[in-house]
Amino acid sequence: MKTRRGIQSIEVGGQLLRVLVTCGKPMALRDVAKQADMTTAKAHPYMVSFCNLGLVKQDPDNGLYELGPFALQLGLVCLQRLDAVQEARPELKELAAKTGQSIAIAIWGNMGPTIVAMEESSYPIHVNLRVGAVMSLMDTATGRVFGAFLPPKMTEKLANEENKRLSPEDATKRGNVMKEFEESLNDIRAHMLAQAVGYPVPGINALSAPIFNHDGNVVLALTAMGPAGAFDASLDGDIANRLRQAAQNVSERLGYGVGEQALS
Amino acid sequence: MKTRRGIQSIEVGGQLLRVLVTCGKPMALRDVAKQADMTTAKAHPYMVSFCNLGLVKQDPDNGLYELGPFALQLGLVCLQRLDAVQEARPELKELAAKTGQSIAIAIWGNMGPTIVAMEESSYPIHVNLRVGAVMSLMDTATGRVFGAFLPPKMTEKLANEENKRLSPEDATKRGNVMKEFEESLNDIRAHMLAQAVGYPVPGINALSAPIFNHDGNVVLALTAMGPAGAFDASLDGDIANRLRQAAQNVSERLGYGVGEQALS
Repeated sequence: MKTRRGIQSIEVGGQLLRVLVTCGKPMALRDVAKQADMTTAKAHPYMVSFCNLGLVKQDPDNGLYELGPFALQLGLVCLQRLDAVQEARPELKELAAKTGQSIAIAIWGNMGPTIVAMEESSYPIHVNLRVGAVMSLMDTATGRVFGAFLPPKMTEKLANEENKRLSPEDATKRGNVMKEFEESLNDIRAHMLAQAVGYPVPGINALSAPIFNHDGNVVLALTAMGPAGAFDASLDGDIANRLRQAAQNVSERLGYGVGEQALS
Repeated sequence: MKTRRGIQSIEVGGQLLRVLVTCGKPMALRDVAKQADMTTAKAHPYMVSFCNLGLVKQDPDNGLYELGPFALQLGLVCLQRLDAVQEARPELKELAAKTGQSIAIAIWGNMGPTIVAMEESSYPIHVNLRVGAVMSLMDTATGRVFGAFLPPKMTEKLANEENKRLSPEDATKRGNVMKEFEESLNDIRAHMLAQAVGYPVPGINALSAPIFNHDGNVVLALTAMGPAGAFDASLDGDIANRLRQAAQNVSERLGYGVGEQALS
């Protein structure tokens, strides 16, 4: 086994970077040092070296320190390599193991919500939940998550098409379907979870949670599905809570919400 | 004067991060070390500490190293603080000093291309180039830069309105104006520079260059303007070259093109 010996000064210096990230604004040396729990004299040479690397820059007018151009490059390289589906895979496996349900990841594909990864449960379910399947926008929990968080312009064409297919002749019914759909989206935004109890397939329940990227855009839906008798679809049940937490973990790995304190 | 003493191991370790940024892909320890010009044995404890900080992560399956979640956070905090106009200001001053011309920065505002910062030259010019001025999309170099690099959907409404105003009665003339405008956009894309010689104001020349952000979107136009007799508007003249270089410098500070090798 390799020894895991590190370099102490890297870890000490890292605490100063952490303060700059957490505070997200230009800071005086004494404030950075204080929040990293060290003296100004100790912190100063670290900041000199961080400036040499471009990880930090110092404003020549007021002497304040903030993250520098090399820090931006680090982040942009990470962003370009980030693959949301890849980041979600570990949660997929863990959720399937912990809930015993089938778990799927969907993206917004060119035909609508599309399953791109899944873990099957021990419970057999006879529904069309498999990789490659395009889900209904209006009639599945997965689809409604995208309906709730994508810009309306991106979903309205598909919603209108599905509505026409569901009720081809009856304008009143069509209006009702659309109204019910739009109201459900508000609930999903409030609970951060879409719920499908006994539809579109009777006897099958589903819950689906949105995953966001660093821009605050929805990029994936994380969906759990199982037979009604073995699937607690309540919005504060065990499956709901685990699903929400897993979706939030992935969003955080995609940079969602980073530096929000810097804006407030 | 403060001493600028640094911490050597921070600067040594920084070279390993630089290799990961430049290569932009997961790498074996020996390759990172080699490219940073150190032995594997020397590099290893640095990587251990970078992993502890989250600046780097190691794939448990294949042992390869790449940038970690803390590196993403560093970059996202930088992105949120980046102000394109602020990043462009130093170039504005330098260009004005070196060319002796009036230099302006324009953004795409809700009324169209809008001047938000400028440096006046020693040459007096009697044109509407001042902070707050909304420039014509079709009839100025500044406007055409946005026309060339913004998505057509964002500019077509304004183009149609301006065209109607320019030739209210004559459909043929309107078609010609639109055709000339669209052809000029191809030239601008090819030269990365828009040229206005003697229009919209006779006797006044202008050149304008696009500034892009990390997403590859145009965010600013950098414009030089002056009296025809003292302003070389050729596309490879001194003003053109300085303007293009200054715009490129700002784009780089905004993260444009970072990590492109990682995608190729």
